[in-house]
Amino acid sequence: MNSRLHNLYAHLDSHKIDSLLITSPKHVYYLTGFATNPHERFLGLLLSRGEEPALLVPALDYEAAAAATGMARIHTHSDTENAYDVLRKLMPSSIHTLGVEKDHLSVMRFEALSAAIGADAYVDVGSPLRDMRAVKSSKEISRMRHAARIVEDVLREGVARAKPGVTEIELVAELEYQMKKLGAQGPSFDTMVLAGAKSALPHGKPDATPIREGDLLLFDLGVFADGYASDITRTFAVGDVSDEAKRIYAAVLEANQRAIEAIRPGVSLGSLDRAARAAIEAAGYGPYFMHRLGHGLGMDIHEYPSVHGLNEDPVRAGMAFTVEPGVYVPGIGGVRIEDDVVATEDGVDVLTRFPKELTVIG
Amino acid sequence: MNSRLHNLYAHLDSHKIDSLLITSPKHVYYLTGFATNPHERFLGLLLSRGEEPALLVPALDYEAAAAATGMARIHTHSDTENAYDVLRKLMPSSIHTLGVEKDHLSVMRFEALSAAIGADAYVDVGSPLRDMRAVKSSKEISRMRHAARIVEDVLREGVARAKPGVTEIELVAELEYQMKKLGAQGPSFDTMVLAGAKSALPHGKPDATPIREGDLLLFDLGVFADGYASDITRTFAVGDVSDEAKRIYAAVLEANQRAIEAIRPGVSLGSLDRAARAAIEAAGYGPYFMHRLGHGLGMDIHEYPSVHGLNEDPVRAGMAFTVEPGVYVPGIGGVRIEDDVVATEDGVDVLTRFPKELTVIG
Repeated sequence: MNSRLHNLYAHLDSHKIDSLLITSPKHVYYLTGFATNPHERFLGLLLSRGEEPALLVPALDYEAAAAATGMARIHTHSDTENAYDVLRKLMPSSIHTLGVEKDHLSVMRFEALSAAIGADAYVDVGSPLRDMRAVKSSKEISRMRHAARIVEDVLREGVARAKPGVTEIELVAELEYQMKKLGAQGPSFDTMVLAGAKSALPHGKPDATPIREGDLLLFDLGVFADGYASDITRTFAVGDVSDEAKRIYAAVLEANQRAIEAIRPGVSLGSLDRAARAAIEAAGYGPYFMHRLGHGLGMDIHEYPSVHGLNEDPVRAGMAFTVEPGVYVPGIGGVRIEDDVVATEDGVDVLTRFPKELTVIG
Repeated sequence: MNSRLHNLYAHLDSHKIDSLLITSPKHVYYLTGFATNPHERFLGLLLSRGEEPALLVPALDYEAAAAATGMARIHTHSDTENAYDVLRKLMPSSIHTLGVEKDHLSVMRFEALSAAIGADAYVDVGSPLRDMRAVKSSKEISRMRHAARIVEDVLREGVARAKPGVTEIELVAELEYQMKKLGAQGPSFDTMVLAGAKSALPHGKPDATPIREGDLLLFDLGVFADGYASDITRTFAVGDVSDEAKRIYAAVLEANQRAIEAIRPGVSLGSLDRAARAAIEAAGYGPYFMHRLGHGLGMDIHEYPSVHGLNEDPVRAGMAFTVEPGVYVPGIGGVRIEDDVVATEDGVDVLTRFPKELTVIG
C-alpha cells in the first residue's frame, strides 16, 4: 500500500473514523493513480479500518481502473443501479462514523449517501488530504517540472510570434495550440496576453487589442500535464519602452528574486510576501502591488498554501507555490514576473527557468 | 418579471416554501441574464414570497450585475464579510422552509448557510429548474444549433488533417485550436480522438498513438458557444478497414437512425434506447453496446434527461439530448455515431447534420 493510503488509514485510527469515502476524481487519482472523469456517475474510493481499499467505478471504467491501480478490490456499478446501495455492501456492516470530502460532496449526493449508509456521524476529511498534498513527492515534483518545461516551450513559441499588429487573442490561440501540440492536457487557467495599458489590469481579458511599439506585453499562462499544473508570467518590452516602465520592471524583478532567496523550511509564508513587498516599496511602487505574492500549485492551479502577508504557516520542504510579485500603474502598464518554486531541505528549487531580464521583442 | 422567475414564485406558493436561494452561476444566468464566475466567492439569487427578487454578489461584480439585470435589489458583500450573514438580512425575519439547489451546494457551504439562516427545513428546488431547462425555448435551440454548426466546421477541419502517421493528440490540438478560431468559448468536454484498437475504449484518452492504415478513427468533440453545448461523434475508416469493422459500423448507424426515427412527444425515453439496442442486438453486437443511448444537452454537456432503457419519462417537445449508440469490440475497434436532437411537436429536429455514411479518409 502506498504511503498516502497508509497516512489516511492512520488518520482513521487516530480519529476513530470507521470508513472514509473519497469521491473527488483528483483525490482518487492522487491516492490510486487512476485518473478519470466520471461526470455525473459515481466514483468512490473506500477505506475501512482493517480492510483493503476498495474502488467503486462505473462499469465502463473497470479495465482502465484495474490497469492503472492493480488494486485487488475494484467493484463496478451500472447506470441502472443505485451506486450507493452497491457502496453500502462494500462497507463493514456497522458504520458509526464515515469520513467524506465535505467541500466536494453536494448536499444531494450526501443525502443519497447517508440514506444508503446510515452512519451516525459524517466528518470532513479535507484537512489530512490538504496536508498531504501540500508536501510534494519527488515524483510529483518531476511532473511539475515537466509541466514547467512544456509551458516554457509554449511561451517561447508565443514570444517568437509577438510583434506590432498581432492581437492579444491571436497570441492566446497560438499559445493554447502549442500547449496541445507539445503534449499538455490543456491550459491550467485562461491564458492571458495583455498589451500596453491593458497590462496594468491584473485580471484583464485578452481581446482584439493589437500590440504596439513601446508596449509592455504581459504573458500569464500555464498547462496541466500528467495531472499537474504549471503557471508562469513574463513581461516583455515591445521595442523601446519608457524609463518608468524599465524602473517598474527592475523593481518587480528585484522583488521576485528577494522572495525566492528567502525561501527555506521554517520561515513563514508571510515573510516571503513581505520580502517581495519591501523591494517594491523601496522603489516607490508599494501601492501598485495590490495582490498576494503567490498561491500553492499542484494538482490544482490554486491550492494550499496561500502566500500572503498574514499567513504565518511555516514553509515546509516539498511545498510548491508561485512567486509572482507585480506592479500595475494605470495608464503606464503593468509588470508581473512569476516563477513556480518548490522548497527543499535547505533552500529552493525553481522549476521555471525562463530568462527574467527585461527582453526586447517584436 | 420574466416567465422563468414567475414559474419559480408559483413553485414557492404551491410548495409553501418561504424563500428560495439560487447559488449556481448557470442558474443565476438562466434566471437573470447575469453571467459571472464568482470562483470561491458567494453568489446568490434570493426569491422570497411576496418580495422582489434580490441578488447578492461580490462587491467587484456590482456594476456588471446592475447592467446585465436591471434588477432593483442588488446587494454586495466584501471579502471580509460573512456572505451568509449578509444574506440572512435580505430574508424575511422568519424562515420556516428554504429552497436550495442541493445538487450544487457542497456539504461544506450548506453547513455554513444553515448555521447563518436557521431555517426549520431545507428543500431541493432542482426539479422545477430541471423541468424548465428540459424544455428549450426557441432562443435556446437557436444557440444550440449555432454550437452544432461550429463543432461540425471544427470536425471538418480535423478530418481534413487526419492521415496515417498523424497522432491522436496532434488532431486534438488542431480541433481545439479550430474551436477557438471559429468563435467557440472552448471545448464542452475533453476532445477525444481514438485510433485503431483504442477506438474500442469508450472513455479512452488520446495520446501519441499514430493513425494507421486500416484503423477505425473515432472523433468525439463538442463546444460551448453563447453558453450552450454541442456534442458530436463520428467514426471514420482510414483506408481499407476489415469487413467486421464495416458490419459494426452498419449496425451502429442503423441503431442511430432507428432511435432518431422513434423520437416524438409522448414516447418514453427508454423506448429510444431500446429501439437502438434492438438494432445492435439483431446484428449480434448486443453485449458490446454497454452504455446508455444518450444524455440531455443544453447549458450543461450532461443534463436531464438521461436516455437509458429504464427511464420511462416521456419525451416532451423542446427536449434536447444526444443519440449516441456505440459498439466496442476489444482488439477490433469501436464505432460510435452521435447526434444532437431536439424533440418537436410532431417529431424531431436533428441539430447535427454531418454526414453519417462510412467515409474513408487519409
